[in-house]
Amino acid sequence: MFDCIDWVNLPTFFSMLVARSTIAPVLAAATETEPEAESSVVLAGVLLSLVAIYFASKIGGEICARINLPPVLGDLVGGVVVGISALNLLVFPDSGALGSDSLIMSILQSTSSLTPEALQVTFEAQSEVISVLSELGVVILLFEIGLESELSELIKYGPQAAIVAVVGVVLPFTLGTMGLIAFFGVATIPAIFAGAALTATSIGITAKVLAEIGRLSSKEGQIIIGAAVLDDVLGIIILAVVASLVKTGEIEVMNIIYLTISAGAFLVGTIVLGRLLGPYFVALVKELKTRGPLLISALIFAFLLSYVAAAIQLEAILGAFAAGLVLGETEIQEELEKQVIPISDMLVPIFFVVVGARTDLAVLDPTVPSNRAGLAIAAFLIVVAIVGKVVTGFTVFGQPDIKRLGIGVGMIPRGEVGLVFAGVGAASGVLSDSLQAAVIVMVILTTFIAPPWLRIVFNDSDRLETVQEE
Amino acid sequence: MFDCIDWVNLPTFFSMLVARSTIAPVLAAATETEPEAESSVVLAGVLLSLVAIYFASKIGGEICARINLPPVLGDLVGGVVVGISALNLLVFPDSGALGSDSLIMSILQSTSSLTPEALQVTFEAQSEVISVLSELGVVILLFEIGLESELSELIKYGPQAAIVAVVGVVLPFTLGTMGLIAFFGVATIPAIFAGAALTATSIGITAKVLAEIGRLSSKEGQIIIGAAVLDDVLGIIILAVVASLVKTGEIEVMNIIYLTISAGAFLVGTIVLGRLLGPYFVALVKELKTRGPLLISALIFAFLLSYVAAAIQLEAILGAFAAGLVLGETEIQEELEKQVIPISDMLVPIFFVVVGARTDLAVLDPTVPSNRAGLAIAAFLIVVAIVGKVVTGFTVFGQPDIKRLGIGVGMIPRGEVGLVFAGVGAASGVLSDSLQAAVIVMVILTTFIAPPWLRIVFNDSDRLETVQEE
Repeated sequence: MFDCIDWVNLPTFFSMLVARSTIAPVLAAATETEPEAESSVVLAGVLLSLVAIYFASKIGGEICARINLPPVLGDLVGGVVVGISALNLLVFPDSGALGSDSLIMSILQSTSSLTPEALQVTFEAQSEVISVLSELGVVILLFEIGLESELSELIKYGPQAAIVAVVGVVLPFTLGTMGLIAFFGVATIPAIFAGAALTATSIGITAKVLAEIGRLSSKEGQIIIGAAVLDDVLGIIILAVVASLVKTGEIEVMNIIYLTISAGAFLVGTIVLGRLLGPYFVALVKELKTRGPLLISALIFAFLLSYVAAAIQLEAILGAFAAGLVLGETEIQEELEKQVIPISDMLVPIFFVVVGARTDLAVLDPTVPSNRAGLAIAAFLIVVAIVGKVVTGFTVFGQPDIKRLGIGVGMIPRGEVGLVFAGVGAASGVLSDSLQAAVIVMVILTTFIAPPWLRIVFNDSDRLETVQEE
Repeated sequence: MFDCIDWVNLPTFFSMLVARSTIAPVLAAATETEPEAESSVVLAGVLLSLVAIYFASKIGGEICARINLPPVLGDLVGGVVVGISALNLLVFPDSGALGSDSLIMSILQSTSSLTPEALQVTFEAQSEVISVLSELGVVILLFEIGLESELSELIKYGPQAAIVAVVGVVLPFTLGTMGLIAFFGVATIPAIFAGAALTATSIGITAKVLAEIGRLSSKEGQIIIGAAVLDDVLGIIILAVVASLVKTGEIEVMNIIYLTISAGAFLVGTIVLGRLLGPYFVALVKELKTRGPLLISALIFAFLLSYVAAAIQLEAILGAFAAGLVLGETEIQEELEKQVIPISDMLVPIFFVVVGARTDLAVLDPTVPSNRAGLAIAAFLIVVAIVGKVVTGFTVFGQPDIKRLGIGVGMIPRGEVGLVFAGVGAASGVLSDSLQAAVIVMVILTTFIAPPWLRIVFNDSDRLETVQEE
């Protein structure tokens, strides 16, 4: 069992007897002149990348667990260490990196003697696979979060979550935009753009920390999750608004209406339909005789809803969350959760390590002039980013003994969502170098500060126990 | 939370607000003219492909389970239905298919309005991801098989397995090559090549069926697994030999020696080292505090050995099998197996469905002249392929009450390994159209016939029970 053989290039013949595939790459290689990625070498690259990711995740996570920090922070920091900022084990072509910049590719190169072109193609293919695996990781994470969430609780705390989400969008946006104009003399449109970047919330990071400290199904946890999901929808709309504003100077009202209605219809529709069809799903699963009856049926459901959410211009993770919520209401919830855990253990760290690996800490270097200007703006943005979200917890009404600070802190991390804003801004030319650097620094800091802070807020009472266990 | 936005092409803007990613694709899109695959659309394509794969696997598997055929046959047949032979949901660019041939891409196209170039790039990226996922599937399968295998049993039946493997290589090769020359007037080198294609054994298919009927750890099962692993190593060597024969007319002895020694050293080395280090591994795992301590540590080990096996020109699956064997000897075996099952349930069907989807049944069409000539040769090859492997069971000595027929039948399926030979032959121009078609027909038939036959041989006594359960 082996892979295709490149007859054009026999010296590398043996390097290709590596893994299995089909005949087709051989045929393609024989008829085309363009370099093709050898699937065996791509597989070897993916395997090596996964080893690096898991090492980074485990070492980072274990260190964090020992100094009472959330393990997900370890994933992020571990990612930074293996990523573009340090070891260059895990770099991605979309940051402008070449195959020759990747340490993984250099290792592969030493055992498979690739041509420079083949190296680049293999690098791109391998990076694509790791990117999609990391995206599948966050899809599975949101599916798991949905499974563990109580629909009735989410609905019960819906009004509070809605206020938290709306205040957490309006306040940072207004403060940020106006402050940039008033204190830093930034023009209106760039200021609006940077302000918009302050509105995001990374549901993945917050939900992971909540799950780690066992607070996901607490009152606070459910408000945060509800607000983060709404924030996700708001974020989609806000990006659409600012993008059309930047492009045409106008706001495309029809698209905003479309996005708002489709998001609402999708979330309500899947949950109503799902609750109706849930019992039939359970009955069907019980009829199945082949391996993994429950898991595969659930994955079909989750991936299908993820696809539909993506197809109607929402996000795949919203579909996965809705699928988890619906299945979490059925009797198979507990058994399904048990089976999803190993899959989640396998795929979710890939997401967080990749987020870390893609974070380029070079923007923090004060010796670069544009960074210096940026760091001053960044300090302002960070204050707004934190204050604007922390106060949201104090808007929660009718819940006297709730941890208001915890809710606010839970909304702080901007994560990969904030990076999307920074990237869009940079690509459109709206953000100056220093403003862009400031946004990225804000994203990095809020992302890395929120997990330990969240843990401190919620864990005050539990900390002694944890220390004793160790 | 959303993905990158293509500022060059605002009409498709909303179609890109789909999934998360980083800023980089935006930057790349802004600076390059070459079309880039939108990672959000690639993710949507992968999700939809996985839905198709799981549907095919479950529907095929459930039908097979109900008519007392092995579910893995259902995966293969389900794959044929969704693949290039029928629905064209799942096609791969390496078969010469374009993005526009893929039904999945047409569905994506209807929701994301891609340009023809973007469609093609997305198609290639999505196919790459599905291919690697299917390869990870067979890596996980062999890891699981390794975990379930008893090293002591494998060693105990090693001599028998070695004879089964060697006879199962020598006999079909000799009969096939000589028969093609004598009866069909085929020239020597093509005849040797086709003969070599007869020597392969698809360890994946056989192991899956054995696991399904609960015979993996039986005496017969362990002999088959041992022989199939050895056959895998022999296959690597044989392909190297025939390839160098075709290319240079000579046999590169040094490479053969290198492959033989490295394969032996790798298998023996990992197992000896693994047994020494196993207790330290277990001790380390017990110290870990973050999620998935056992699973992630085991995956690091398995993926690392898979990579090493690939790097020394063996196969990734050999590394995964060795890792499974080693960890199967430790006290954590049972717990680890439990955690690997959901991952295996998720990834393994992708492999078998993809094998089916890549199988082009067009070579069976007798209205095509070269197929007609091929079908006659195919009939001969099939007889040799079956006889040459079935007799191997009768070479097993010192085991009076063993199911000899079962062992022989277990060695029959050529699977994807046979296709590699056919593909290499085609690419090198050694095989004529009809001979190539014959080899492919032989591969298809042996692959599809072995699972039900294997089940019949082993299940004679169990069948009544199975029927009663239903």
